[in-house]
Amino acid sequence: MNDRFLKACRREPVDRTPIWVMRQAGRYLPEYRELRKKCTMMEAVTTPEIAAEITLQPLQRFPFDAAILFSDLTVPFTPMGAPFDLKEGVGPVVHHPVRSASDLARLRRLEPAADLPYVLETIKILKGELKVPLIGFTGAPFTLASYMIEGGPSKDLRLTRRMMYSEPTLWHSLMEILSDSVAAYLGAQMDAGADAVQLFDSWVGVLSEAAYREFLLPHMRVIFEKLATYRKPVIHFGTGNPTLLPILAEAGGSVLGVDWRISLTDASASIGRSVELAFQGNLDPALLLAGGPAMENATHRILAEGRKLPGHIFNLGHGIFPDTPLAHMEALIKLVTEAPVAA
Amino acid sequence: MNDRFLKACRREPVDRTPIWVMRQAGRYLPEYRELRKKCTMMEAVTTPEIAAEITLQPLQRFPFDAAILFSDLTVPFTPMGAPFDLKEGVGPVVHHPVRSASDLARLRRLEPAADLPYVLETIKILKGELKVPLIGFTGAPFTLASYMIEGGPSKDLRLTRRMMYSEPTLWHSLMEILSDSVAAYLGAQMDAGADAVQLFDSWVGVLSEAAYREFLLPHMRVIFEKLATYRKPVIHFGTGNPTLLPILAEAGGSVLGVDWRISLTDASASIGRSVELAFQGNLDPALLLAGGPAMENATHRILAEGRKLPGHIFNLGHGIFPDTPLAHMEALIKLVTEAPVAA
Repeated sequence: MNDRFLKACRREPVDRTPIWVMRQAGRYLPEYRELRKKCTMMEAVTTPEIAAEITLQPLQRFPFDAAILFSDLTVPFTPMGAPFDLKEGVGPVVHHPVRSASDLARLRRLEPAADLPYVLETIKILKGELKVPLIGFTGAPFTLASYMIEGGPSKDLRLTRRMMYSEPTLWHSLMEILSDSVAAYLGAQMDAGADAVQLFDSWVGVLSEAAYREFLLPHMRVIFEKLATYRKPVIHFGTGNPTLLPILAEAGGSVLGVDWRISLTDASASIGRSVELAFQGNLDPALLLAGGPAMENATHRILAEGRKLPGHIFNLGHGIFPDTPLAHMEALIKLVTEAPVAA
Repeated sequence: MNDRFLKACRREPVDRTPIWVMRQAGRYLPEYRELRKKCTMMEAVTTPEIAAEITLQPLQRFPFDAAILFSDLTVPFTPMGAPFDLKEGVGPVVHHPVRSASDLARLRRLEPAADLPYVLETIKILKGELKVPLIGFTGAPFTLASYMIEGGPSKDLRLTRRMMYSEPTLWHSLMEILSDSVAAYLGAQMDAGADAVQLFDSWVGVLSEAAYREFLLPHMRVIFEKLATYRKPVIHFGTGNPTLLPILAEAGGSVLGVDWRISLTDASASIGRSVELAFQGNLDPALLLAGGPAMENATHRILAEGRKLPGHIFNLGHGIFPDTPLAHMEALIKLVTEAPVAA
């Protein structure tokens, strides 16, 4: 097996910087769009053979160093008691938003084996097919809570932030249910064969460090402590506010995902030398969309910065845009896989 | 005239921390909602008597230390050659988005006196009425460009970032037109009587420092150099990525607006001691929405942090949410205006 990705996660020497790309299995691939004409998003996610096929699609085209499970952040919602619809062009719309103690009473902790057997089955299928490590994932508690509380799309997560500030007891109860569920779900994915997992905190960037410390840190620490017993890489990725990186590192994870708003060098410097971490990232997805010399220059810079870190996995700083030309992805992979080993 | 706000902007001693609130003239006020039943947003903005009345509304209710002109970021668009509609619940939708050299050829520099006489007339009316300083404003070039390029609402400013990266010549030409227009517009507002101006870079937080340095900094410096000749406070406010604060300070302005994602202390420390600046901010608007002990504690902390800075104007870290209860604003103003002078 190609273990370049796992070695970089563990801060061991590698022959070159490994690469995978967030949403590498998705809409920028014509074969994905073709397959999705025949099934809905939820059908694709809940049918192990289809989810496995989609996971494998990008690897048949590009020499990525890891696969990421094709799934969706929202799959735990319905079994947890928060049914929703995925509205095209809108996103998940939860039928009964969670805004009060009685709403919370309708929720229960996720039981991954009973609730999401199709995810675990997808992982088992993939482990028989893959020549690269498989990354499992889920959304982090704040991000999952924001979908449950807002009910639909929100630019500002106003209701989520209000609940956090004005009803801390309710908030912490919700966080306990979600963090227990997240830890159990990622653990089950690793038990089923995932070689690493990524925790996506996609909306956490609307918070300050002080708010994170008070309302999230205790719950996040519990998750990472539980996952540490698996001795597999855990990638922690939050977007939108790079000044949160030190507290995200404090919360836990062995690899820190970095979004495109800060350089890897500044990200690493902000955390200090005392924490042993590998870093993942962080090309602006708009640079991959743009292609050309701007993308090339930024890629060379990121590779050079990454070589000075104890471990670096090349990735975008956020998911690939669906309208990214395939030729740009080809060019990017060529740049990364053919880069000289030493700086 | 109450000059507490101007003194704090100039880093002179004040009897207490001055306060105003972004969007203090707006939808959270019942008298604003009542008035807006009779006219559209564009009618309110383009009719000096109505715009002046709306500007004054919050001051009749609360002892704010400054007034902010009631206007909209989009008013320069139509005269500059980018006509648009303000769609309810959506925002500005530009008829012909600016995406090519031929689109750019349709744009021209703003001539404030000829193009926006109603704004300057509103300022003149207000100067006869106000007992506090008047703040003029406009959007910064990146933010204005993003509306023009995207055409409608966008979560990620994908097309704006793509143009910046893939067509730098086109981008810099657009920035020149916009920065000349912005400088002329803020200058005309000060000539008409505005005592200070605020430059809102609402969407700049999707950029890294490296991208800001290459694609915005030269244009922003020109704006601030032109405005420096007025010897009036210029507030520079960018949201979304607090690691941009040092380069925003480098670009210019005498007061740096700080969003709620970073503490005033950390914001000031990130910039260093060499730059002479006052700071404005930075209560999370969701804390004002929530009210209660969380808001009180955060307000006390911000006031205490502000007292250690050479100049501090209390404000939110972003505009007030329209559904904020009036009682919370009353409580906030009481906390700030009755706070002890010394820490």
